[in-house]
Amino acid sequence: MKKSRLQRERAEYRPKLPKGLQGAVKVKEGEPTQSVGDQEEIKKLFPNTYGMPLVEFVPGDKANSGKMNVGVILSGGQAPGGHNVICGLFDAIKRLNPDNRLYGFLMGPGGLVDHDYKELTADIIDEYRNTGGFDMIGSGRTKLEKEEQFEKGLEVIRQLDIKAIVIIGGDDSNTNACVLAEYYAAKNYGVQVIGCPKTIDGDLKNDQIETSFGFDTATKTYGELIGNIERDCNSARKYWHFVKLMGRSASHIALECALQCQPNICIISEEVEAKDMTLNQIIEQVASAVAYRAEQGKNFGVVLIPEGLIEFIPAIGRLIDELNDLLAAHGAEYKDLEADAQREYILAHLSAANAETFATLPEGVARQLSLERDPHGNVQVSLIETEKLVSDMVEAKLAEWAKEGKYVGKFAAIHHFFGYEGRCAAPSNFDADYCYALGTSAAQLIANGKTGYMAVVKNTTATTDEWKAGGVPITMMMNMERRNGEMKPVIRKALVELDGKPFKKFVEKRDEWAKETCFVYPGPIQYWGPSSVCDRTTRTLALEQE
Amino acid sequence: MKKSRLQRERAEYRPKLPKGLQGAVKVKEGEPTQSVGDQEEIKKLFPNTYGMPLVEFVPGDKANSGKMNVGVILSGGQAPGGHNVICGLFDAIKRLNPDNRLYGFLMGPGGLVDHDYKELTADIIDEYRNTGGFDMIGSGRTKLEKEEQFEKGLEVIRQLDIKAIVIIGGDDSNTNACVLAEYYAAKNYGVQVIGCPKTIDGDLKNDQIETSFGFDTATKTYGELIGNIERDCNSARKYWHFVKLMGRSASHIALECALQCQPNICIISEEVEAKDMTLNQIIEQVASAVAYRAEQGKNFGVVLIPEGLIEFIPAIGRLIDELNDLLAAHGAEYKDLEADAQREYILAHLSAANAETFATLPEGVARQLSLERDPHGNVQVSLIETEKLVSDMVEAKLAEWAKEGKYVGKFAAIHHFFGYEGRCAAPSNFDADYCYALGTSAAQLIANGKTGYMAVVKNTTATTDEWKAGGVPITMMMNMERRNGEMKPVIRKALVELDGKPFKKFVEKRDEWAKETCFVYPGPIQYWGPSSVCDRTTRTLALEQE
Repeated sequence: MKKSRLQRERAEYRPKLPKGLQGAVKVKEGEPTQSVGDQEEIKKLFPNTYGMPLVEFVPGDKANSGKMNVGVILSGGQAPGGHNVICGLFDAIKRLNPDNRLYGFLMGPGGLVDHDYKELTADIIDEYRNTGGFDMIGSGRTKLEKEEQFEKGLEVIRQLDIKAIVIIGGDDSNTNACVLAEYYAAKNYGVQVIGCPKTIDGDLKNDQIETSFGFDTATKTYGELIGNIERDCNSARKYWHFVKLMGRSASHIALECALQCQPNICIISEEVEAKDMTLNQIIEQVASAVAYRAEQGKNFGVVLIPEGLIEFIPAIGRLIDELNDLLAAHGAEYKDLEADAQREYILAHLSAANAETFATLPEGVARQLSLERDPHGNVQVSLIETEKLVSDMVEAKLAEWAKEGKYVGKFAAIHHFFGYEGRCAAPSNFDADYCYALGTSAAQLIANGKTGYMAVVKNTTATTDEWKAGGVPITMMMNMERRNGEMKPVIRKALVELDGKPFKKFVEKRDEWAKETCFVYPGPIQYWGPSSVCDRTTRTLALEQE
Repeated sequence: MKKSRLQRERAEYRPKLPKGLQGAVKVKEGEPTQSVGDQEEIKKLFPNTYGMPLVEFVPGDKANSGKMNVGVILSGGQAPGGHNVICGLFDAIKRLNPDNRLYGFLMGPGGLVDHDYKELTADIIDEYRNTGGFDMIGSGRTKLEKEEQFEKGLEVIRQLDIKAIVIIGGDDSNTNACVLAEYYAAKNYGVQVIGCPKTIDGDLKNDQIETSFGFDTATKTYGELIGNIERDCNSARKYWHFVKLMGRSASHIALECALQCQPNICIISEEVEAKDMTLNQIIEQVASAVAYRAEQGKNFGVVLIPEGLIEFIPAIGRLIDELNDLLAAHGAEYKDLEADAQREYILAHLSAANAETFATLPEGVARQLSLERDPHGNVQVSLIETEKLVSDMVEAKLAEWAKEGKYVGKFAAIHHFFGYEGRCAAPSNFDADYCYALGTSAAQLIANGKTGYMAVVKNTTATTDEWKAGGVPITMMMNMERRNGEMKPVIRKALVELDGKPFKKFVEKRDEWAKETCFVYPGPIQYWGPSSVCDRTTRTLALEQE
């Protein structure tokens, strides 16, 4: 494997650990916990992993040295730092006992079921320190949710004498980790399951999880690109750039990028939903800003659009909900129809109100909403070209206003979609340290006999020394939600809170940003150089922890 | 103007100058020069600026201290480092005489004609040191080519007591700089004109110009993104990513990115032309690699496509040439027709062979070829979605092969276009130094009474100390070419040379890259840290200067 020069130099970086994880570790346990919602139902579903205490690791005096082999799985979309979680886990179990072995299951949770694995030795681990990507063992989206999968997995677990499985994933994968933990506990198999909070989307966040790993690096990478585009925009002064940003349902990425780069407009899906805005209202809001700037002679600007927007427009949201249920129930007969017949099928089966919404959507968008779901039964929002939809509709609105004499200006749009560009970036110093600490915490949770926990690290706006590592029972973060047409226990997805500090900061500034040109150009992630540049966390985290 | 932390720290960077420019300067002149082609015609068109000697600056003992005010213009597309050219120019003329003033003409060459300018004072200059973008004074694409423009410009030049104009631009803008220099010289106005080689495209390059500024930073920015996508691709192992890269006609950017990142496939337009390849042959070549990898179980990969590709497919190139002439001659009557009528108009006016090519193109592409030209009369290739065209056609070819039993695999494509993301990036150490030296050279050319010269810096793969700064007569780089249907004197555009070392290196490796997965992940530009990472030049330059 040929390495870039940056990769070669960066391999030497030694991630910093919180004090509590630097040497021997003592476990500090809190009070029993409750789930955030639907406590009776969650408790009934998870009798063996419900109500466990929060755990914090503090400096101790004797190291646990039990023999334990561990298996690790990367689940779902890539996020910067995943390799460092594995490196932290490896180093920690080897420190506990050099005979401990780490096995990586290949291409996601499917590797456990299919007995597809490799042992991760020091040579392999060293190749991947501080690198981006999930290519060390690959990732996948197979859902672990059936007993036969759990039993099939157990065979290889027994064969490799594995004490615990670490699942590195987002909210859905951690939910499944807990289901697996509960199953193995109920069966008394003696196999522990530990989760790790991964996702660039930033939506796996709550009172216990300050941030999911990868969010820092991904948003900094997008911030670099948006800043460069803003600078181009402000130099050429003739284009409106519409930038769609990855992030699934939540608008955390868009909001963070807005706080970093101060674009003219940033749409926040959660606000659209809370204010019950129609697509037309959103378009009028954007077009008004374009028209205002045109009056000042500024026929240019930058607009950020979260990829989940379309789902959050209430009328379209209701339509998507019904479509999800419809496709989950009738997917098989629907799937083989031609495009036109699919449209007819949908119109015939939808309720009147939703059929009307569906019929009035631009055809391309309607089509995209009726395509295949992801494995969790959700619309694949990243396939919908919302950035073009919005700019086309803004252009049409401006043309209308021009006829009425309400707008004079030139409008030329350029489109961008950033997602894949940041998911596999090499982790920032923050993510490199954070992930390594998460991996180390996971090892300690295992060594201390825990199962159904997620590794966490808190106090992350302090210096690394002062970070607090530990574990949180996964059930504590659960409630019941409708998925694929059924009520399921899931980790509550964190959307942008409209009374949270990051959003409030944005609201305070956005009128000025729309009218003036207040662009900020963050530049590329730096690994060496002034700490003010290299070690800064996200604006979101800084504001939330203020 | 709120600055990012990187920008604040980076403002402190002091660009390094070649020895010849560090103190007082002596001029070393070579033999009289000839143009690279059409010598009689060029000499006749440029009687006052033809045949001048090459100039090199070496350490001297007395500084020129004449009073000289200077005007500066940014022309055409943005390129990283433009601000540093201006900073170098400013510092140098102030060193020569603190009373010297620098005026920036606003929004491109139009600022000279419209008398739209601002004085660039130390306060302004300090705001923009080592920053990307052209926002200090803006840029534009107005062509300076008419006498009335030259005379109008002269008024403000006289008014501000300006001795010389520095035009920072690409091949076309430097050609026009020379036309202006010749005009002022012929009229004995005593106004000098100096050019500077700017363009991310890398196509302003010849025996005298080693590289145009901005190429280094832009390709490193694209390299970062392509590397991140490769890593994502190699982690998810389920997508083919088709990446179109800016660069106008030439494939220098695509080739440099290929050398940096080792993608599976990179199409080089110049090779397509030289081998007289059809679109179908290109598609078969890509589809063959996809099919080969599918046999190995690798249904993923990365393909780089230069934005100019479509023009270089000979049949399409001939069509575009005739379309350019047709639209230049009949643009007025054609422009106001409806889309369908435009298509009919074109089919009726084209020669039989080209009409047939036009008729067989996918409709969207045909439409894009018939749209408005840029100010130089060229097709706006960046508007053509070549990346989708290629991947759609590859998909269709694979479907055909699957029916014939020649291909078994899954093909899912994701598209990207990188251009605006890199044009305004903050300059790398190389571009920061290189641009600052170019600006300093421009000041010395002026102080030494030169006109019709371009500032150059050579020996750029050595340490900065050993770089050789000087000037080259612009006529030396000219020949006659057809533009907008007329023969014009222009600087010869540098395309990728198929017998040059960068292309040969690529050819040597590409089969391996197509079959294996040899991705390299360059990571983001670093400004601090190991010199092997921060100060490395492009692979193109390193190979060419080997």
